[in-house]
Amino acid sequence: MLSRTQHLFDEATRVTAGDSRWEGQTSDDYWAFVGPFGGVTAATILRALIDHPQRSGDPLSLTVNYCALIAQGGFDLDVRLVKANRSTQHWLVELSQGGGDVVTLATAVFAERRPSWSHQQAPFPGAKPFEEILPYTRVAAPWVRQYDFRFIEGDPDFGPAKKDAPASAFSRLWIGDRVPRKIDMLSLMSMSDAFFARIFHARRELVPFGTVSLTTYFHTNVEDLAAEDISRVLAVADAKIFHKSYGDQNGELWSANGRLLATTTQIGYFKA
Amino acid sequence: MLSRTQHLFDEATRVTAGDSRWEGQTSDDYWAFVGPFGGVTAATILRALIDHPQRSGDPLSLTVNYCALIAQGGFDLDVRLVKANRSTQHWLVELSQGGGDVVTLATAVFAERRPSWSHQQAPFPGAKPFEEILPYTRVAAPWVRQYDFRFIEGDPDFGPAKKDAPASAFSRLWIGDRVPRKIDMLSLMSMSDAFFARIFHARRELVPFGTVSLTTYFHTNVEDLAAEDISRVLAVADAKIFHKSYGDQNGELWSANGRLLATTTQIGYFKA
Repeated sequence: MLSRTQHLFDEATRVTAGDSRWEGQTSDDYWAFVGPFGGVTAATILRALIDHPQRSGDPLSLTVNYCALIAQGGFDLDVRLVKANRSTQHWLVELSQGGGDVVTLATAVFAERRPSWSHQQAPFPGAKPFEEILPYTRVAAPWVRQYDFRFIEGDPDFGPAKKDAPASAFSRLWIGDRVPRKIDMLSLMSMSDAFFARIFHARRELVPFGTVSLTTYFHTNVEDLAAEDISRVLAVADAKIFHKSYGDQNGELWSANGRLLATTTQIGYFKA
Repeated sequence: MLSRTQHLFDEATRVTAGDSRWEGQTSDDYWAFVGPFGGVTAATILRALIDHPQRSGDPLSLTVNYCALIAQGGFDLDVRLVKANRSTQHWLVELSQGGGDVVTLATAVFAERRPSWSHQQAPFPGAKPFEEILPYTRVAAPWVRQYDFRFIEGDPDFGPAKKDAPASAFSRLWIGDRVPRKIDMLSLMSMSDAFFARIFHARRELVPFGTVSLTTYFHTNVEDLAAEDISRVLAVADAKIFHKSYGDQNGELWSANGRLLATTTQIGYFKA
């Protein structure tokens, strides 16, 4: 499972197995402005859990609290199976560097997804095919270069437009890896943090921003997702409020054939 | 802060301070079908953090993972300040009983909410006044009796109606304490889990259900909330998908004058 592959994403999320202490390292390819792209950090944590010998079932939910900046270099993942039931597992992961304070704190639930009544209430957003939309090319940070963003709505076009009234924070876009890679749970985790900060859209400008807490729910299991055999998702993201230095985001990741694969929400700090 | 009051909610969420280990107890008044009402468990955890001598700032987010059933009686809260920055604190709480396994695992972020650009993008759902709506009286579990639910939309009327097609999972309702109590952060936390399970609405019947993970974001601070001086919130909840034994829920809690106070999401197990 830890075999070396050619895709940068797999390099970036590579972990070295330990007993309760695993090791990872930041990736320059997925670097953001002042630290690693949070989506890859979350995916790395998820990978350590998926690869853990005690793991059973598929990822159901992951919450990641970004406590402090991760410095360039190696990090340790203290992984603990807090509670296991017949069909669910509860995990706790503490990420630290050089024996210092915890810099990222995560909890995860894994579950055996048994067949049940199934109903998808949320409407499929729909979109023009990926191939008919030009890729987003205004790349500000290295991690953005690793993705192929194709905007249908809510293009982050932060020109010198008038900013009297807040603009919509809604976006609808295709997200794929720049070098195509089959969508797995790790890509869903990472892509759930691959939306540009909603505050950028609402303000139509870049401002200091950092995700504080991110939660993603998976609505597919490994087997079903593998069967989809897709290399991109249709994604929507929106915000409800920006207030007293913090704002929220909620998003959905869909397969092209209309399956809701994951939902995500986050709260982030901004300075504006 | 730990003074005894007459309100059952304050009794139910009462905690006894320790150093890193605090104590609480389940409440028969807020009992659900097979364990305590998850909202009160979450509020009890939040109360231990708010009352903690090392706490600074206001609640920003709380994620609670319900790992196993809490038995009737006392429980311990292992409270740890994982990381503190200039304006945020990251906490970890492990709830256990009698020295056994962790049964509830929670992470929280507290923050100093500094003035900033402010914009509420989500539309206020609006509603008829609380007083003009009849209270919901079909009470199945003790905790439901502690709240005054007044449904505008999505009344859980699970009669012998035809169930050929899934019904809407959306609800809009006023929520107040049955014995009025001023809304504080603890009530917001508890009320964010006070929606009936979305699967009940979609199926129009009660089925075995349990919340697995709950995340609530606070969009107000203690000072602003106190100034609102309200004893009820206008709440909306919806679901996006029910699949392979798990379904999601997302909700909003509003003040009557149109301020978004909290947003919440959860994933739960169901058998159907």
